[in-house]
Amino acid sequence: MNLIEKELYHVEKMIKGDVVKEKSIKEIYKYIFKSDGKKIRARLNLISSSINRKKKNRIKLAAIIELLHTATLVHDDVVDDSSFRRGNESVNNIWSNAHGVLIGDYIYSKAFIYMVDVGKKEILKELASATNDISQGELVQLDAINNQEITLTKLKRISYFKTGRLFEAAARTGALLAETKPIYIKNISECAKNIGILFQIKDDLLDYSLSNDIGKPLFQDLKEGKVTYPFFFAYKNADKNTKKTLSNNLGNKKANTKDILRLIQAHDGISKTEDLAKKFHKNAIISAKKIDNLKIQKEMIELAQLAYEREK
Amino acid sequence: MNLIEKELYHVEKMIKGDVVKEKSIKEIYKYIFKSDGKKIRARLNLISSSINRKKKNRIKLAAIIELLHTATLVHDDVVDDSSFRRGNESVNNIWSNAHGVLIGDYIYSKAFIYMVDVGKKEILKELASATNDISQGELVQLDAINNQEITLTKLKRISYFKTGRLFEAAARTGALLAETKPIYIKNISECAKNIGILFQIKDDLLDYSLSNDIGKPLFQDLKEGKVTYPFFFAYKNADKNTKKTLSNNLGNKKANTKDILRLIQAHDGISKTEDLAKKFHKNAIISAKKIDNLKIQKEMIELAQLAYEREK
Repeated sequence: MNLIEKELYHVEKMIKGDVVKEKSIKEIYKYIFKSDGKKIRARLNLISSSINRKKKNRIKLAAIIELLHTATLVHDDVVDDSSFRRGNESVNNIWSNAHGVLIGDYIYSKAFIYMVDVGKKEILKELASATNDISQGELVQLDAINNQEITLTKLKRISYFKTGRLFEAAARTGALLAETKPIYIKNISECAKNIGILFQIKDDLLDYSLSNDIGKPLFQDLKEGKVTYPFFFAYKNADKNTKKTLSNNLGNKKANTKDILRLIQAHDGISKTEDLAKKFHKNAIISAKKIDNLKIQKEMIELAQLAYEREK
Repeated sequence: MNLIEKELYHVEKMIKGDVVKEKSIKEIYKYIFKSDGKKIRARLNLISSSINRKKKNRIKLAAIIELLHTATLVHDDVVDDSSFRRGNESVNNIWSNAHGVLIGDYIYSKAFIYMVDVGKKEILKELASATNDISQGELVQLDAINNQEITLTKLKRISYFKTGRLFEAAARTGALLAETKPIYIKNISECAKNIGILFQIKDDLLDYSLSNDIGKPLFQDLKEGKVTYPFFFAYKNADKNTKKTLSNNLGNKKANTKDILRLIQAHDGISKTEDLAKKFHKNAIISAKKIDNLKIQKEMIELAQLAYEREK
């Protein structure tokens, strides 16, 4: 187990160990944190702050990032009416939407309590701004529902706000905690932002696959009427008739997914999205190479690779 | 217009003036803040901080309190599946649950951005703790649904956490901003907490009335299966048969409300709740009288009176 893995274990322990006595809250809280996600954001944060391992509160800050991320996931499941998360039933599915909304608020405010403990104004500022941007990204995404006319600019903004932004904040706050050189803060934040957007693009791609192993149902975006990159690019390239077929299947819970995937492939929806992923991967590597700590540079490149090659 | 009214006007202006350009977000945000609520919590905060009017950020802090309160209201409407709020259609009714969850998060994080601007650690700490307690109160309340066996202790905890706690935090943070004597902080917080709980008890009472003018549908708690004080006391006093009738109507959207109200009255559900309101009103006055600034003391007594006598 390398150092970051050990630290991640402590992050997990901190989160799991801090539960209120109230039985009903405890039960949901434990359920949410029992499934061990990849914790890629917390990892990113620890990598970033590892430039100065002597600083206090590194574990707590990584726990904050993980809590914030989890709160948005729980709310997202309510928003998307999703029944599954990481292969497990969602909170709104087992309990109710009401529980999902409130336990999300509970986790969010717990993150906030930890932030006050950490107490650095610059960190608080970045996290406040990031959480605001995330909610904006999600709200703008609601506009993308059943909206074939959405622009590429808006899609990029959504990927940045809803995913890239927290990656960026994870890296930036880690660097801010370390109290290191501004150029380090800039480079690692930029790199993390690119990894985050890449991560989201891959998420959009994975949803348009036939694999059974990604831990959640496939073609959810299409069925929910959510226009993402593969649909967007295909729709743009399609003739009038194909546009009509694509439109008719957007938001259709009973869409014939094999046919649609074939159409989307035939109209370069997948290949153009892959090109976009490649571009953000390249940008991530370029900014990683500017980081003048070789160990951290290597770890960031590995993260970019992980995001680029992820199959689930 | 007295000074506090003028300040409240600036609070409103600050909140309304700060909207993102994004059209869809702007529209919902404006809708939420167009209806002018009583702003009793922001008022409380301004009264509390008025002990030192020279301090910066008084308006901003009151805006934070109002934003936090509004965020919880928007989420509550999703949680309770309410279609109306202050006589207007709720966000989840006009837009969707998804919009309600996300715009709530947006408003919540905006409050957080303002808090970082205000920047006082003690204030941040109190608000983080209060928002966490509020979500706990709401979660515990979900346990009270269709649960006739709930205890008075738990009901009181719900009233404190979901309502009293933010009143208390409004007063405490106002006093903390003013950097005044600890005894002032203690007395005004205690007074505000009592007013808040009183406010909630009156809310529970108003739901069991036949008036048409309280700005929201009546007997919502009963219909949602939510056990509140009037039901609790009546159920405790009822014989076996009446208990059965009450149980059958709990969570029944088609309950015969006139009959139920008569039953609840006959079993002292209303009078015992009124006694409880009287008790918290009395406690509020006692702690108000300990405040050694006569103007503020008077304003707090007026607030207690307002809460006690409110008809909507």
